[in-house]
Amino acid sequence: MNRIITIGREFGSGGRELGRRLAEALKAAYYDREIVAEIAKRTSLSEEYVHQIVEHRPIVAFPIHVGRSFYPMLNPVWDQGQAVYQEQHSIIREMAGKSDCVIVGRCADYILRDEKPFRIFVYADMESRVARCRERGEDAGRLEGGETMTDKELRRRIAEVDKNRAKYYEFYTGQAWGERLNYDLCLNTTSVDLGKTAAAIARLFE
Amino acid sequence: MNRIITIGREFGSGGRELGRRLAEALKAAYYDREIVAEIAKRTSLSEEYVHQIVEHRPIVAFPIHVGRSFYPMLNPVWDQGQAVYQEQHSIIREMAGKSDCVIVGRCADYILRDEKPFRIFVYADMESRVARCRERGEDAGRLEGGETMTDKELRRRIAEVDKNRAKYYEFYTGQAWGERLNYDLCLNTTSVDLGKTAAAIARLFE
Repeated sequence: MNRIITIGREFGSGGRELGRRLAEALKAAYYDREIVAEIAKRTSLSEEYVHQIVEHRPIVAFPIHVGRSFYPMLNPVWDQGQAVYQEQHSIIREMAGKSDCVIVGRCADYILRDEKPFRIFVYADMESRVARCRERGEDAGRLEGGETMTDKELRRRIAEVDKNRAKYYEFYTGQAWGERLNYDLCLNTTSVDLGKTAAAIARLFE
Repeated sequence: MNRIITIGREFGSGGRELGRRLAEALKAAYYDREIVAEIAKRTSLSEEYVHQIVEHRPIVAFPIHVGRSFYPMLNPVWDQGQAVYQEQHSIIREMAGKSDCVIVGRCADYILRDEKPFRIFVYADMESRVARCRERGEDAGRLEGGETMTDKELRRRIAEVDKNRAKYYEFYTGQAWGERLNYDLCLNTTSVDLGKTAAAIARLFE
């Protein structure tokens, strides 16, 4: 069986960087935005729209014209959410079947539960997440054409993204996002060296 | 500054074994029951009684005659709890000042917060904790002269110990026991090899 590592992560906690470094250390495939791109291809929805769906509960209403083309539907918003989740489900299972891999987000821990993945949850205190978002340039306002957010706005944005991730996860898995018993390892990245940490975690699989 | 690792742990999760192995891997001192023994020596209370106090909130009333001798007091039960916590505080600080060390339980993460210890919390699912308690022989009834507990009784006992640990921790630290932001690493021992895990964690400090 392939070695599968899933990473759930609070926004701004460095979960993606940890995942990339871990994949590198283990010579495993790394999947993150690739999943969104593949869903977009299969559903003919835009990547941006798919991304919005997988960061929210599907019952949240989005303007229908955001998608690049139409997907057959009766209750369009609901059905798109379901379709995206179904495609995500298939794609994640295909990816896990191909080779050792590290998969970031997207309920992969739950979708692959029968494969017994090693499930990591990455978190950090708010201050370090704000700092990380600024480093990554994710502090640009979305509505105001890229103005820099204040710390307060950035904290609100981080809390909002996490709230949506939690709702999405809970909607599809029936489990609590970030609840420690759903993970094998929960890692606080507030003051750690991600490279060193990835190397240490990789040791678990030697 | 000495390298200090603190381990909080759910009852039956293998936190002490992990601590011992980690101390071994890092050639660091290991403190657990030693702390209780030292408190008993300094307060002239019995080890058994000190152990009971540090596993409960100090406001819980214990029969006074359990102690081997008397400690100067006005409100005896309250004062004993406070005295034990004070001694614990001093002893833990002394131990941390002496050499690299791994300290299990006893609010050490909070007491040593200025030393920036690496704070681990160890947990596991109930089934594996019941199994671990049986392996360690901790399934003997306390009142009935050592009869083996049923699974249900053992689960109740585990939940009770954890509840008391949580209350004790929260009483003295004002923080939530097991809340991930209070730890650098939370580790689920349900299905891991503790030796391998200790070796991997030790890598973080190389």
